[in-house]
Amino acid sequence: MLNLGVIGLGRIGKVHVESITTCVRGAKVKAVADPFLNEEGKEFAKKHGIEEVYTDYKKILNDKDIDAVIICSSTNTHANISKEAALAGKHVFCEKPIDHDLEKIKEVIETVEKTKVKYQVGFNRRFDHNFKAIKEAVLAGKVGEPQVIKVTSRDPEAPPVEYIKVSGGIFLDMTIHDFDMMRFLSGSEVEEVYAIGGALINKEIGEAGDIDTAIITLKFASGAMGVIDNSREAAYGYDQRAEVFGSKGAVETKNDSNSTAIISTKDGVTGEKPLYFFLERYMASFSQEMQEFVDAIVNDTETPVTVMDGLKPVLIGIAAKKSLVEGRPVKISEIM
Amino acid sequence: MLNLGVIGLGRIGKVHVESITTCVRGAKVKAVADPFLNEEGKEFAKKHGIEEVYTDYKKILNDKDIDAVIICSSTNTHANISKEAALAGKHVFCEKPIDHDLEKIKEVIETVEKTKVKYQVGFNRRFDHNFKAIKEAVLAGKVGEPQVIKVTSRDPEAPPVEYIKVSGGIFLDMTIHDFDMMRFLSGSEVEEVYAIGGALINKEIGEAGDIDTAIITLKFASGAMGVIDNSREAAYGYDQRAEVFGSKGAVETKNDSNSTAIISTKDGVTGEKPLYFFLERYMASFSQEMQEFVDAIVNDTETPVTVMDGLKPVLIGIAAKKSLVEGRPVKISEIM
Amino acid sequence: MLNLGVIGLGRIGKVHVESITTCVRGAKVKAVADPFLNEEGKEFAKKHGIEEVYTDYKKILNDKDIDAVIICSSTNTHANISKEAALAGKHVFCEKPIDHDLEKIKEVIETVEKTKVKYQVGFNRRFDHNFKAIKEAVLAGKVGEPQVIKVTSRDPEAPPVEYIKVSGGIFLDMTIHDFDMMRFLSGSEVEEVYAIGGALINKEIGEAGDIDTAIITLKFASGAMGVIDNSREAAYGYDQRAEVFGSKGAVETKNDSNSTAIISTKDGVTGEKPLYFFLERYMASFSQEMQEFVDAIVNDTETPVTVMDGLKPVLIGIAAKKSLVEGRPVKISEIM
Amino acid sequence: MLNLGVIGLGRIGKVHVESITTCVRGAKVKAVADPFLNEEGKEFAKKHGIEEVYTDYKKILNDKDIDAVIICSSTNTHANISKEAALAGKHVFCEKPIDHDLEKIKEVIETVEKTKVKYQVGFNRRFDHNFKAIKEAVLAGKVGEPQVIKVTSRDPEAPPVEYIKVSGGIFLDMTIHDFDMMRFLSGSEVEEVYAIGGALINKEIGEAGDIDTAIITLKFASGAMGVIDNSREAAYGYDQRAEVFGSKGAVETKNDSNSTAIISTKDGVTGEKPLYFFLERYMASFSQEMQEFVDAIVNDTETPVTVMDGLKPVLIGIAAKKSLVEGRPVKISEIM
Repeated sequence: MLNLGVIGLGRIGKVHVESITTCVRGAKVKAVADPFLNEEGKEFAKKHGIEEVYTDYKKILNDKDIDAVIICSSTNTHANISKEAALAGKHVFCEKPIDHDLEKIKEVIETVEKTKVKYQVGFNRRFDHNFKAIKEAVLAGKVGEPQVIKVTSRDPEAPPVEYIKVSGGIFLDMTIHDFDMMRFLSGSEVEEVYAIGGALINKEIGEAGDIDTAIITLKFASGAMGVIDNSREAAYGYDQRAEVFGSKGAVETKNDSNSTAIISTKDGVTGEKPLYFFLERYMASFSQEMQEFVDAIVNDTETPVTVMDGLKPVLIGIAAKKSLVEGRPVKISEIM
Repeated sequence: MLNLGVIGLGRIGKVHVESITTCVRGAKVKAVADPFLNEEGKEFAKKHGIEEVYTDYKKILNDKDIDAVIICSSTNTHANISKEAALAGKHVFCEKPIDHDLEKIKEVIETVEKTKVKYQVGFNRRFDHNFKAIKEAVLAGKVGEPQVIKVTSRDPEAPPVEYIKVSGGIFLDMTIHDFDMMRFLSGSEVEEVYAIGGALINKEIGEAGDIDTAIITLKFASGAMGVIDNSREAAYGYDQRAEVFGSKGAVETKNDSNSTAIISTKDGVTGEKPLYFFLERYMASFSQEMQEFVDAIVNDTETPVTVMDGLKPVLIGIAAKKSLVEGRPVKISEIM
Repeated sequence: MLNLGVIGLGRIGKVHVESITTCVRGAKVKAVADPFLNEEGKEFAKKHGIEEVYTDYKKILNDKDIDAVIICSSTNTHANISKEAALAGKHVFCEKPIDHDLEKIKEVIETVEKTKVKYQVGFNRRFDHNFKAIKEAVLAGKVGEPQVIKVTSRDPEAPPVEYIKVSGGIFLDMTIHDFDMMRFLSGSEVEEVYAIGGALINKEIGEAGDIDTAIITLKFASGAMGVIDNSREAAYGYDQRAEVFGSKGAVETKNDSNSTAIISTKDGVTGEKPLYFFLERYMASFSQEMQEFVDAIVNDTETPVTVMDGLKPVLIGIAAKKSLVEGRPVKISEIM
Repeated sequence: MLNLGVIGLGRIGKVHVESITTCVRGAKVKAVADPFLNEEGKEFAKKHGIEEVYTDYKKILNDKDIDAVIICSSTNTHANISKEAALAGKHVFCEKPIDHDLEKIKEVIETVEKTKVKYQVGFNRRFDHNFKAIKEAVLAGKVGEPQVIKVTSRDPEAPPVEYIKVSGGIFLDMTIHDFDMMRFLSGSEVEEVYAIGGALINKEIGEAGDIDTAIITLKFASGAMGVIDNSREAAYGYDQRAEVFGSKGAVETKNDSNSTAIISTKDGVTGEKPLYFFLERYMASFSQEMQEFVDAIVNDTETPVTVMDGLKPVLIGIAAKKSLVEGRPVKISEIM
């Protein structure tokens, strides 16, 4: 039984505690740490049978009985805690992104390589049943050689402008998941990116220097092409679809909804809206990524989303931003 | 925290242990009992943190700390254990059916009424997201007054003939779930039933005195009508669909499958088969029914599927069997 | 180029004129006859290039240049005109049903056999792309041996009670199409029928001695079973679906709608309602049945829906009515 | 009754003759002209009741009784015949594109403006039931302000390389329909375009200086964005879908197939492939565009696809080609 320490007990931290407690085999949460821990957090920890509750994450790093840490703190702390944890001999599961700064990510990579700890980045969508089904169809050769990969990724509502200002911009905050998905589905590396976009939903987002709607095209090393379309606000809810088109056919997925019920009335034939947001849609994927992290430690195998997989989408995101600003396609090699 | 005792650690017993351990709030499994308990069962219990493992279920009934029992033993023991447990002051969750014998069910009903314990029957499909969505649409008035209720219920493969022989026949073994669903979706009682059927899949099933394919029509007290079509073996897997048609429209559900992936090739546009069988399809419903059982005890409210709900589908099943044998519609009032 | 005479220029007569004029190869409408022909009808005929317009259909029968007649007059005239036309040497396409009276149908059958004219009954749904796709899948062995055949058939709105009174009842007026479909899809003859039903939509329909909602189960000679569910009024429109379930799988069809457009908003994910009624849904099938009638004459082959195919559904309809009245399953052999 | 002259009796010319003859009200084909007219063509004309059959189209222009011409000859003759026909006082329906050369298109525009004849370009997809349904949903405000417009357009098989060489390139030969659709669905003008692509299906297409797979992003004057993905060869057949995403939701369409039949077997749940190619998919749209052309002449209203609508997609196509070659976004204003 692995002992895990969860650092950061915000929304995503709680998701991980919940799924480890109820669904992950071979691991338990021994300790949590959060500098802003309040009564509600303590209650949450107690209810989930967690022995130790800290405000200082270093206590977790110093606990000899803890095998691995789950980093769910704010993005700007990911890189430092990653390095410290690796140096303390802990395996690391780190929420995405590792950092927005390439130098800091490179330091993490070096530390991971030196310490040889397991490191996994929280690109949970790879573990979603729908995206996995696409990947499996591609790997099974059902669609032949991939030629065009398409991802539609829309949030149900735009975050507050205050959040937008510190988010790193849409490409590093939101599209980063889609850049990872593009690498995952294509089985190839992105070489060039071109982005267009605008603040079509909320002018204030534009005034804050960001966009809320975007189309990004990508060229892969394999010769394949990709396109992502993003919106911060789809009136009907979370829209998460993908398609891989290849020489033998295509595989595509639709959204998930709560049931398959179809109601037919004089007003039309109506199904349910998609599951509202990432917690509803991707809950099972959070358990699955954690299970595979635990299994990689137990079996001493490579994690399914490595530290390098954490770097690449950030590179693409930075290139996309540059493309948008300069109005031209940008090669990834310009960024590295 | 309620303490539960699970009686019978076969397939469905394990399902309940698993879901109580991982997903049900406010309860834990304190003990299990199974007369045929082997090493594998003990290992299972240990892994799920169960303190006590018995071969004799009476030890569970004698344990003062146990609040409720989950009866998962063979059908012919359900009624007796139900009565004993109620008399021992334990709340009872009993797998369906309570019994095939009406007298024995009536004794259970009397005991439950006398002892005032909570009693719930394991008609788990009521808790399935799809059937709940139909029920909610009906309750919300979306389809108006129900006029026609349809259930398609097909298993992925016929059980062995040896099982068929002791099953009580298709209507009490398989269709009983659909009879319950008819009552649930219609919000009305069945008054008359007419059944046709045959052994179209496997002649040996016919030779064993049973059928494997059936169509059953029902008349409800409300004036609505219903039809169930059953097959013991659908080549494409478990087929579980329903429709309520009413004065303002209709609501229907499709099967669940593992993903929404659609693969288009020169051979056609192909989606996944339905989830294979009841464990895959209805797993979440097993957790949900148990959660609501626990909540009914904690909050001292009525259970969502009462002991009377256990009786009614058996009555309909017996009437259906009589209808098939006699080649005529049979009123439920003939059976009671 | 065959010369056709259309007898009866009501709604369905006009449909046939329209489709022959625009879509049927190898035939043209030379004459129409309608006792109630008005200016609008004359205008319609002129616009479609029809040379002769009569009030007396016998003028069509006497026209040596006319090869075949299309009988679209009121049901009670079908049998007589059929006989007269056959005796006049004309091939006959007759709208369904030939008659409600078995003796009259038998006289038509005898006349057709004696005169050896081609005779086709207007069960147009056999020519619908969806039902044809089911039939083809069955014939291709895709679903193995048929075991359960299901037809859902609902009209978008109940006809006036005045119409109901002279309609012959729901089984001969509406379900007759579904009885034909059952024979077509099963490839077997119906041996027994059991019907339940009620006036759930409109009490006046009940007071007029008819029902508006029904479920009819059928036993086939092959051992297969069937079920039809009917409603005179589906709030969302014309509902025409079928399924054949067999030893290797199932084939089913959904409704047609005007487009595949799906609109997703905060209110749900909504598609179009089905095409409104039979003219919208089955228009192409009217052309197709007429083309095959013309081809059968030109090539001297059997018509795809013979005079015997006109008899059988009437037998089933009469049996269904008897079943409803007597509350018991009725064998077709009781009727013949 | 308008008299039409069809110039060019190749595949699309025959399509127009067929649909005018069977489905278009208020017009007939009086004459056809084709320099390569053979016996098969003469037979075709005779069968459709066409009075005059010429090799020289000028005979049609000289026929005083002919009101309008349908230009279906090879692309390089469109502009000249358009001008001559307009100067001869004939209304003109011209297949797309008017020309690949902007100067020639401008001459046509000037001639049409001067002569005041009706002029319609054959962008038939605007008249397809699915695309019309999207347009209607947008116009009805169902999706709010359009923000992202997406078109997927894939052919079932790549044309011969010999055809590719004289086609004008994928953007003017194939994508031109999608550029028109973008204008139609967005209700806005394209201002900038960026294209990526490659010869992924057939290297010889690349050697011939063209591509077979492309993704094109577009910026609209309204601030909306668009993306088209093209393939010359989808293994599963013709793929023609679109989506408009806006502030209140989204509307999208799927492909059409021959039936709604779904076959479920041990191998999966399979529907039909899309209708094979444009003749199958868009046949009804050819009738509809012709009907509206005829109606525009009869009622003296503007044609639904004007000569300016013929110019714009060519501009976008030229810009897309420039973008691909130069590896940068290209403004439409650079082209004009």
